Amino acid sequence: MTLRLAERMINVKPSAIRQLLKLGADPEIISFGGGYPDASLFPLEQLNHVYQTAILDQGRDSLQYTVSNGSLKLREQIAERMAKEGVACGPDNVLVLQGGQQGLDLVAKLLINKGDGIVAEDPTFLGALIAFNPYEPRYIPVKMDDDGMDMDALAQALETNSGVKFIYVIPDFQNPTGVTLSLDRRKRLIELANKHDLIVLEDTPYREIRYQGEALPPIKTFDTEDRVIYLGSFSKILAPGLRLGWAVASEELIQQLSLLKLAADTQCSTLNMAAVSLFMEKYDMDAHIESIRQVYLRKKDLMLNTIRETFPASVRYTEPSGGMFTWLTFPEGFDAGTFMLEQALPKAKVAYVPGASFFSVDQKVNTARVSYSTQSDENIVKGISALGNLLTAELS
Amino acid sequence: MTLRLAERMINVKPSAIRQLLKLGADPEIISFGGGYPDASLFPLEQLNHVYQTAILDQGRDSLQYTVSNGSLKLREQIAERMAKEGVACGPDNVLVLQGGQQGLDLVAKLLINKGDGIVAEDPTFLGALIAFNPYEPRYIPVKMDDDGMDMDALAQALETNSGVKFIYVIPDFQNPTGVTLSLDRRKRLIELANKHDLIVLEDTPYREIRYQGEALPPIKTFDTEDRVIYLGSFSKILAPGLRLGWAVASEELIQQLSLLKLAADTQCSTLNMAAVSLFMEKYDMDAHIESIRQVYLRKKDLMLNTIRETFPASVRYTEPSGGMFTWLTFPEGFDAGTFMLEQALPKAKVAYVPGASFFSVDQKVNTARVSYSTQSDENIVKGISALGNLLTAELS
Repeated sequence: MTLRLAERMINVKPSAIRQLLKLGADPEIISFGGGYPDASLFPLEQLNHVYQTAILDQGRDSLQYTVSNGSLKLREQIAERMAKEGVACGPDNVLVLQGGQQGLDLVAKLLINKGDGIVAEDPTFLGALIAFNPYEPRYIPVKMDDDGMDMDALAQALETNSGVKFIYVIPDFQNPTGVTLSLDRRKRLIELANKHDLIVLEDTPYREIRYQGEALPPIKTFDTEDRVIYLGSFSKILAPGLRLGWAVASEELIQQLSLLKLAADTQCSTLNMAAVSLFMEKYDMDAHIESIRQVYLRKKDLMLNTIRETFPASVRYTEPSGGMFTWLTFPEGFDAGTFMLEQALPKAKVAYVPGASFFSVDQKVNTARVSYSTQSDENIVKGISALGNLLTAELS
Repeated sequence: MTLRLAERMINVKPSAIRQLLKLGADPEIISFGGGYPDASLFPLEQLNHVYQTAILDQGRDSLQYTVSNGSLKLREQIAERMAKEGVACGPDNVLVLQGGQQGLDLVAKLLINKGDGIVAEDPTFLGALIAFNPYEPRYIPVKMDDDGMDMDALAQALETNSGVKFIYVIPDFQNPTGVTLSLDRRKRLIELANKHDLIVLEDTPYREIRYQGEALPPIKTFDTEDRVIYLGSFSKILAPGLRLGWAVASEELIQQLSLLKLAADTQCSTLNMAAVSLFMEKYDMDAHIESIRQVYLRKKDLMLNTIRETFPASVRYTEPSGGMFTWLTFPEGFDAGTFMLEQALPKAKVAYVPGASFFSVDQKVNTARVSYSTQSDENIVKGISALGNLLTAELS
């Protein structure tokens, strides 16, 4: 038959993430590709206990339908956690989502008509581009440095572009670069959003995985005009297989997004919401997060030390204070995608994510994202050393 | 701030379903409103067992990310079940969804540009209208009788309307009417879809809850041109709180829908997929479904007997062979919404769904959907009798 697809589909391409998932299945490959949490950190005994309670004691409710914005108790608990971050809110400011990813889709669905502008860090999260693309936005990438998005460049972009609907930003240990938006820039970003009357989509999946320094306040804490939509996630602090995240915003925005949530999939899993709610009630989430931080700090140090020891000086890397990634910048003319296929994979049995797909407009092929979250200490040293030796041979 | 929403939002309205969920929370009200399964039928012990296995024995995988189209094992199991229905397919023809509802959203997202036509039964599932509305389709409603969608009316609608993208149909125990599309009409529907080169979206959430007569083959079994997208759901045969359903279609269509699934929410809950997969492996799903059928048959008989005994003859009702609903048609001029608010709720403490919101274009207010799935036998007799007495006083 003739498939007459909606025009918006022209922008949906097969994803590099899927290809990497397939690579990750080869047991010989040491993959620094996927942004997966370390599965050995999942609290199995505790999760088993809360699922048992949710099913045997509460199953008539926790296996049934519930309201589309999410179980009240879980929304209250999320609001309490947000208050500790300085974001004053109640349960009606919270929408439970099928992971933070669903927030990206619903916000774009709410705000973007074909050709509307989205400002984003350059590079930015590939999953966000995949979520936004079907709505056919016009991307306005803004350059970054070690303090995150460049605010002078943002100011200029907003002066010279009309029809912008929102600014998408990952302020803490950004995906893919690992860098953090500085305090001054957080304040300046809100000033610019106020001046140009824009929504800010603040995406924070790695925020609580900070292992060095003090946490900076969320951009949302500087929001006096109800223009920030904050996205959080249980994927990195508990387990991604539960598919639970949340949005915090004004009641008006949450109501609109809740209607789109109802339209998209009715609601999140009642059972998973009940289990996470019980987990936060019965166990110490903050202590659990602290144990994750220690592991990722050790792995990050191990990876960066090995990079320092084995990589040629012409390869630059970022030094994250949290999250899961460092970002490599190779000399001009180096193609990280070709190098992975022709050298890193066959010779070193190492995979990473070539950086090109993280750029919304001009793809810089001399970049790569490397994740230290899932591999063992031994594999981090082995894989990064092998990659370093190959790079030294190639670039010296 | 000024919210500049995407134009598509003009069609998303607060939903009658949400209002009914709130009503359902009043313990004094006997609600025949929500299309919920009977929670006493959830297999708690068995689900507890499979979750325990999924977490303690398989937790490193079942709590982690997986592929966006769904766990391979679950897709294989679904393909096996579909084969028993006469739909030959493999795991690459299956996409696991966040409930059948997500299939409605993704198919519309794939196919519908503003103004494109969707043919649907009149009345049709409210949740489908809610899913389709954000894409701003033009609805082409086709009248029904006790054998489902009228094929002569469909033929005429397709001759006189251009720009139609798909035909949406719920062939088994339709929501809201409870009627089933006859065998001849299933074949005729495919002929018409072939003639006009259209996708058919076959939605079957109630299909396996047949308690009388023989199952009719899915429309998909007559599909020789890969134009039917079949949607199934675990919500009614297992538990809606797991949020799991599936699509079966050509590999090309499934690939396109999988990309939109990735964009929308990355994937379904790995844990819930693992648990349902284990449930089908370790227990007898068909025996479980048979036990559900017996209960709904008893409740349906009780409700229809009570309607026959207490309702005035001027109120017509459908006689379902499965599913959860009967559909009431009152005399012309009767407003079922007003009657519920002014009489049924305050005087009889009974709720149903006024039928108007199930019509995509011309809303017939003299209709109502009544569900027999969740109330106890006692409450069915008590509530329907009270409603019948009120109606007799009103209409005699």
